[in-house]
Amino acid sequence: MRTQVAIIGSGPAGLMLGQLLTLAGIDNVILERKSADYVLGRIRAGVLEQGSVELLQRAGVAGRLHREGLVHHGTDLSFDGDRLRIDFTGLVGRHVTVYGQTEVTRDLMAARTATSVYEAEDVELHDFDGQPWVTWKKDGVTHRLDCDYIAGCDGYHGVSRASIPSDALTTFERVYPFGWLGVLVDKPPVAEELIYAHHERGFALCSQRSPTRSRYYVQVPADEKVESWSDDRFWDELRRRLDPATAEAMQTGASIEKSIAPLRSFVAEPLRFGKLFLSGDAAHIVPPTGAKGLNLAMSDVAMLADALIEFYAERSSAGLDNYSAKALSRIWKAERFSWWMTSLLHTFPENGPFGRRIQRAEFDYLSGSVAAQQSLAENYTGLPA
Amino acid sequence: MRTQVAIIGSGPAGLMLGQLLTLAGIDNVILERKSADYVLGRIRAGVLEQGSVELLQRAGVAGRLHREGLVHHGTDLSFDGDRLRIDFTGLVGRHVTVYGQTEVTRDLMAARTATSVYEAEDVELHDFDGQPWVTWKKDGVTHRLDCDYIAGCDGYHGVSRASIPSDALTTFERVYPFGWLGVLVDKPPVAEELIYAHHERGFALCSQRSPTRSRYYVQVPADEKVESWSDDRFWDELRRRLDPATAEAMQTGASIEKSIAPLRSFVAEPLRFGKLFLSGDAAHIVPPTGAKGLNLAMSDVAMLADALIEFYAERSSAGLDNYSAKALSRIWKAERFSWWMTSLLHTFPENGPFGRRIQRAEFDYLSGSVAAQQSLAENYTGLPA
Repeated sequence: MRTQVAIIGSGPAGLMLGQLLTLAGIDNVILERKSADYVLGRIRAGVLEQGSVELLQRAGVAGRLHREGLVHHGTDLSFDGDRLRIDFTGLVGRHVTVYGQTEVTRDLMAARTATSVYEAEDVELHDFDGQPWVTWKKDGVTHRLDCDYIAGCDGYHGVSRASIPSDALTTFERVYPFGWLGVLVDKPPVAEELIYAHHERGFALCSQRSPTRSRYYVQVPADEKVESWSDDRFWDELRRRLDPATAEAMQTGASIEKSIAPLRSFVAEPLRFGKLFLSGDAAHIVPPTGAKGLNLAMSDVAMLADALIEFYAERSSAGLDNYSAKALSRIWKAERFSWWMTSLLHTFPENGPFGRRIQRAEFDYLSGSVAAQQSLAENYTGLPA
Repeated sequence: MRTQVAIIGSGPAGLMLGQLLTLAGIDNVILERKSADYVLGRIRAGVLEQGSVELLQRAGVAGRLHREGLVHHGTDLSFDGDRLRIDFTGLVGRHVTVYGQTEVTRDLMAARTATSVYEAEDVELHDFDGQPWVTWKKDGVTHRLDCDYIAGCDGYHGVSRASIPSDALTTFERVYPFGWLGVLVDKPPVAEELIYAHHERGFALCSQRSPTRSRYYVQVPADEKVESWSDDRFWDELRRRLDPATAEAMQTGASIEKSIAPLRSFVAEPLRFGKLFLSGDAAHIVPPTGAKGLNLAMSDVAMLADALIEFYAERSSAGLDNYSAKALSRIWKAERFSWWMTSLLHTFPENGPFGRRIQRAEFDYLSGSVAAQQSLAENYTGLPA
């Protein structure tokens, strides 16, 4: 079998890249280790930057998004119960849209007309510093796919980054000493917009997926076990971290999903090794504070798609040669913002009382400064590429 | 002897407070442990916020400042040799004025008409939770001064804060693992404005006192000895941390002062204990990055003077009761800014390669964001009180 671009991974990054290439008449095949149902069962982020929405429009998959997505013109911060609204639209003329990553994946899967291979086992990348090809096993049979390029969109634990000789990559990492315990519940969100809350007991987030489905989180130690958290314990802890009015108004119920996600900052450089390109979580991880993960993956693959389209249309490799540097420039700014918002809102006992006062001073400064609010808003709604 | 306000310390904070009180007809006495010449010999900061300049005008001591002070409409940042100018005037319509703290002190000393006692030994504060009085020794004789209030303007190592029962104060501190090695030289500054430079070898600063006198700094380990630094070694190290054009243009010469200052963030709360008020370095220390130390002292004593004037004019203690909270609100924002600018520009090996990339991302983000530049500019030129 032969194709122009072999895409590893059928998450939103791989699917979006495939869709953009297919629309441009570029042949591509997606290989995914898991089943489609498994991929759709993963609960992930749900806040789309305006640029991500525009990309979904360009990809022709924004119909349901426009019907069901919730436009948020701002977000709330809370610090020990004191509230501050960041008015995105008023500050920078941009907004975000709440629409679950799972729904983005579903829409992209539904739109796909090119070949996708699910449950492709033992995927291996070959000769990607020369004439690349990919092999995998399915139902006991080994398959081979020859291609011009390979796009590694298979996430942090995927085979793509792992296939690159380790001395060809520089990695940067910070592991935070805590995670997010998240609960999904079929109850209306407590507030129209998100509430990011700092409390001396730890961070909390009131998020949402739809007008009837809410997603709540509390900061927990990195080694916490989800089994230790009954629904009651979760709701009690969350209420303690919110201002009293919000705590009282919140509708609780039986969790339909409950899990702990570790928090990590990670970047691998460069994003290209020969004919292999890395995009999305395969190349970088951000802590979820600020909702940059999915949006970064979208901007990565938009840049990579444009570079591939340019290559096939004009036989110019300028875009491909520039992809790594251009994407990394945006990635590092999003890493910075995610690290900053994480640092502002979580508790870090190791930073001591001075560190906590600096967090409070940052919140107080933000409360009184239009420039600081604009800076937050332009990062949250998405910096230009 | 009796006065209305006993002021401990004849640095710029104590002198400014005394001047504002004297102009309002409020009797005051300044007690200073050292001689006037010693005080004038201390080399300190030299960048005045617009609010500090306005306060010096109000105090009637801005004549020489307006003749000799250098108005700076911006400052330069440098990161591994890449330059970025922050245009204060264009961004926030404010500027700063370069005029040495020593000159401010000299002008305030020259204007003083009320009593100052220099070389007052063994100063002790008594009964400041009731009817306060102060004692000191001079030429072997013990003196006593009765007063309504005591203003502690005697710096970090002074007797004022040390006189407050330790369980009545909460202190917050961060000690940085480095200091600034500074050299004063009678050569014209290398640039019209200041250059704050981050380099992988450490921070450097090109500052100035006048058109013919420059002040340069390099970051050194906290335990470094000034004796290890010949002038030649200093200039060589400084040049390596600057962009090549600046390094080449810099005029070097024999140092007329060379010293190492540790970097520390410190705040004591509250600023009032009975009839004793703390102002300036007696209550808080900032690292010098961002030049907030003298300016914070000026805004503290402006608030304290207004509160005392209100008390004597209207017999209302509202301003005095509110002084601590009001001053601390501004102090913590300046602590945050000084900590942030220190964190951006120095090397912190303990933060690893990820930390260094976050610094670079901050510089790159700053380079492209008007909002981020405005935020820096409004802090550097001075937040409102």
